[in-house]
Amino acid sequence: MIDFRTEPGQYRHWKLAFDGPVATLALNVDEKRGLSPGYELKLNSYDLSVDIELYDAVQRLRFEHPEVRAVVLTSGRERVFSAGANIKMLAQSSHGHKVNFCKFTNETRLAIEDASDCSGQRYLCAINGTAAGGGYELALSADWITMVDDGATAVSLPELPLLAVLPGTGGLTRLVDKRHVRRDHADYLCTTEEGIRGKRAVEWKLVDEIAPSSSFRDTVRKRANELAARSDRPKDATGIALPRLERLIASDTVSYPFLHVTLDRLGRTATFMVRGPAGMPPSDAKGIHAQGPMFWPLALARALDDAILHLRFNEPEIGLWLFKSEGDAAEVSAHDALLQQESRDWLVREIVLLWKRTLKRIDVTSRSIMTLIEPGSCFAGFLVELLLAADQSFMLDGPLDGDNKPPASLRLSGLNFGPLPMGNGLARIATRFLGDPGALERAAAARDKDLPAADASALGLVTSTPDDIDWEDEVRIAVEARASFSPDALTGMEASLRMAGPETMETKIFGRLTAWQNWIFQRPNAVGDEGALKLYGTGRKPDFKRERV
Amino acid sequence: MIDFRTEPGQYRHWKLAFDGPVATLALNVDEKRGLSPGYELKLNSYDLSVDIELYDAVQRLRFEHPEVRAVVLTSGRERVFSAGANIKMLAQSSHGHKVNFCKFTNETRLAIEDASDCSGQRYLCAINGTAAGGGYELALSADWITMVDDGATAVSLPELPLLAVLPGTGGLTRLVDKRHVRRDHADYLCTTEEGIRGKRAVEWKLVDEIAPSSSFRDTVRKRANELAARSDRPKDATGIALPRLERLIASDTVSYPFLHVTLDRLGRTATFMVRGPAGMPPSDAKGIHAQGPMFWPLALARALDDAILHLRFNEPEIGLWLFKSEGDAAEVSAHDALLQQESRDWLVREIVLLWKRTLKRIDVTSRSIMTLIEPGSCFAGFLVELLLAADQSFMLDGPLDGDNKPPASLRLSGLNFGPLPMGNGLARIATRFLGDPGALERAAAARDKDLPAADASALGLVTSTPDDIDWEDEVRIAVEARASFSPDALTGMEASLRMAGPETMETKIFGRLTAWQNWIFQRPNAVGDEGALKLYGTGRKPDFKRERV
Repeated sequence: MIDFRTEPGQYRHWKLAFDGPVATLALNVDEKRGLSPGYELKLNSYDLSVDIELYDAVQRLRFEHPEVRAVVLTSGRERVFSAGANIKMLAQSSHGHKVNFCKFTNETRLAIEDASDCSGQRYLCAINGTAAGGGYELALSADWITMVDDGATAVSLPELPLLAVLPGTGGLTRLVDKRHVRRDHADYLCTTEEGIRGKRAVEWKLVDEIAPSSSFRDTVRKRANELAARSDRPKDATGIALPRLERLIASDTVSYPFLHVTLDRLGRTATFMVRGPAGMPPSDAKGIHAQGPMFWPLALARALDDAILHLRFNEPEIGLWLFKSEGDAAEVSAHDALLQQESRDWLVREIVLLWKRTLKRIDVTSRSIMTLIEPGSCFAGFLVELLLAADQSFMLDGPLDGDNKPPASLRLSGLNFGPLPMGNGLARIATRFLGDPGALERAAAARDKDLPAADASALGLVTSTPDDIDWEDEVRIAVEARASFSPDALTGMEASLRMAGPETMETKIFGRLTAWQNWIFQRPNAVGDEGALKLYGTGRKPDFKRERV
Repeated sequence: MIDFRTEPGQYRHWKLAFDGPVATLALNVDEKRGLSPGYELKLNSYDLSVDIELYDAVQRLRFEHPEVRAVVLTSGRERVFSAGANIKMLAQSSHGHKVNFCKFTNETRLAIEDASDCSGQRYLCAINGTAAGGGYELALSADWITMVDDGATAVSLPELPLLAVLPGTGGLTRLVDKRHVRRDHADYLCTTEEGIRGKRAVEWKLVDEIAPSSSFRDTVRKRANELAARSDRPKDATGIALPRLERLIASDTVSYPFLHVTLDRLGRTATFMVRGPAGMPPSDAKGIHAQGPMFWPLALARALDDAILHLRFNEPEIGLWLFKSEGDAAEVSAHDALLQQESRDWLVREIVLLWKRTLKRIDVTSRSIMTLIEPGSCFAGFLVELLLAADQSFMLDGPLDGDNKPPASLRLSGLNFGPLPMGNGLARIATRFLGDPGALERAAAARDKDLPAADASALGLVTSTPDDIDWEDEVRIAVEARASFSPDALTGMEASLRMAGPETMETKIFGRLTAWQNWIFQRPNAVGDEGALKLYGTGRKPDFKRERV
């Protein structure tokens, strides 16, 4: 079982150091301590275990270190920055693991960009030795790249010539869409094993500057301080420690304080029961800081984030996720309102950004998502995103026979209309009503009102609103049908339908680039017994099938 | 060998009829006369032979029928519009053929939209019987969809539940991005075999209107006349007949009047030698009409279009296309200037639009493209697009030893800065200099000037400018290296690097949707011996591998 929970004291591969407003994350991979046996992580190459630590560090820097305004990504070794994803690890991994691994590493690099863009914690990459493949792709996620000019250090993306696969962690997209490298230069780089160094790397925009070895450290320090000076992070704030997540895994359940996941293995379905808060929120930001990691929106986001990753990696045959909720909608709304009221507080900003990233994980998860809204549920404010993120949603119209709970209702808030955008840059509700501004306005006018099923349906917020008589059958049939379809076709369909509207670097990475990489990860030229990925290091040359497709 | 040349008198599957400003294209597939043995084209299902005729009809309507302002797509049968791509055909086709087939059908549907958007020839789809899968996807390419409301006729996309593949001809993208169907409605439609009919199809925006059988024909006629009335096509113009393309295929050459393609099978390389015109152009639009299909830009575009399709389908192992040109650059520039001067003439508009579509074919062709600019070449005006479309380009700096031709030069024109956009909506040169407006301005300022290699390089128009001493080696090494790489990885890399910048419905179809479909077309759940596509019609149910990837 893969566990995503870790903390700096347990890191095997990264060192996190602090110097006033500048933190340094230095990669020094322990070759012998990868996730699985069968490979050694030489030359600072990485596997998922390295990336789990990076993900944790990026998260903690935001919550635990409000004083950190710039982060230097660098290598703790001489002459090598990183050789990228470990090739033997890729060669021995299943298709599913490769795809999941790439998705997670992509999410972490996007989280780095999110910290630079939204959180005032700007990343700088100090390339102090050769950065190949995923090593250079990690650098591309930084705001600024300084490379040592020592006559040897180069950036390269040798995946295509060496392994017959793509740079799969956003490199192709970031080259042309983020750094605006000319397409023929990008093409040259990606078809050249040795990469590019020195002045040419700057001229081609592959790095932002080079510095000779003698002044490299000083240059990096200077740039980090410049980036830090532009940050809007608070002065004299105190971070909150993120304790190890409480989690109880049993054969068919995964439990967290505010989230209980039940697995129906026969039906290949997981039910996420989201629990509302235990009471009303504190009255202001000070109270939120006092609650810290116990503050309900933060505790729930962390639980949901972990549950998503756990199910993605450890429960691949559970193809359908059902979201439900239970609790007091008024208490949920009060927490939601507090997040809006205190939006300028640094910690509240981080909590909302964590929700944004966690909800984006759902959008790109290759599982079908259905949301069920029943009496006793508490879908209000940001929790409504769990139904806007669903492929289909069902809301029970009226009371349940023999149950004294009032009929289910929904309640939209300001958080549904902007602060939690999808990867395409639009709110989920704006994507839903693309090309229909009237529908979006009507939904906006219904904010902060309790919407029973009839209203939710009239506003276009839910797919279907069966009454008590039809509810059980209709939901059962929808769930059973979904679980019967080809998992692969569902993945392709959902990836296409979920992301209407504008495309961004992020949607291109998860749509276009990921899809092509997945295709290549299925082709004999890469993964066949005579494919390049399998033969790498044996001295034998692959004999490619020559048909262009 | 697959031949794309046809004409209405040879059509087996479509009937083209004219009624003043309205043309009708009626599908009545000849079951027994598909492209290959092994399947019957029942229920107006189609294979490539059906689409080759549609492509030809759409093209001829533009050039031969300036009087046609609206086109009705309908079925020539009772109770069935079209069942979409033939399933047995798909099941027996190679992966490469499936991918090529989908690409061509996508291009033809985009050409229909291009006729509606740019050419004043607006398409209306009259769904007079069930439209399933690719049948409904064809309808989605029209400007307006009228469906008969007879209690039986429905639109459906049953690919996922029936075959475990995607609607691969743009359906998913057009649902949410063109017609703005809500994502949960789209999801429901795509997971329901029987589809949607009647009022609900209108409410969900799947069709624009329904009409009972009794008034269906009248409604369609009325809508067609309304669409025709909004057209800007000329009155009293005379079309030009498109004669059968002259083409000579030998073992290693394909020749047209202004294009000669040489195949190096051992090197897996094709050289496209584009020939300049035979003299100066006529002085005005009248002269262009008089030359008709012999007018050099039109003759060359038709030849290039055919050569691209021929090589895509019939020469899949030729992985690298080299573009070269020879001729008088002044004569090319004069033709290019005439196209700009007479841009308001309907025929000139069509010629430029044909160039636009043909160049777009290159952008989405899964072959590496390199352009070589040598002494004696004539890369001026719109021909410069052949180097802007290339993955890399090489320009010989200075004269060739022992050759008295002057050094090569390039010449940009107004046609490079807007009228020939890529699928992303930007000119190729604007995509090239994305995020660098200064470079774009410098290139624009250099329009209509002869640019020797040093200037072309300084302006960023070419990748490399070797001199006579290095030319042969450098080009040979680049070509050999390219031909040695994995064809699949090249396809994925090129698809990612060629299309920087904004995304459109078109780039989503060729990027995201195509890539996912290609992946699914490789997965055992679809194409394995026990996959859904293979088992369809046998009565046996596929036993899917349940892992979600």
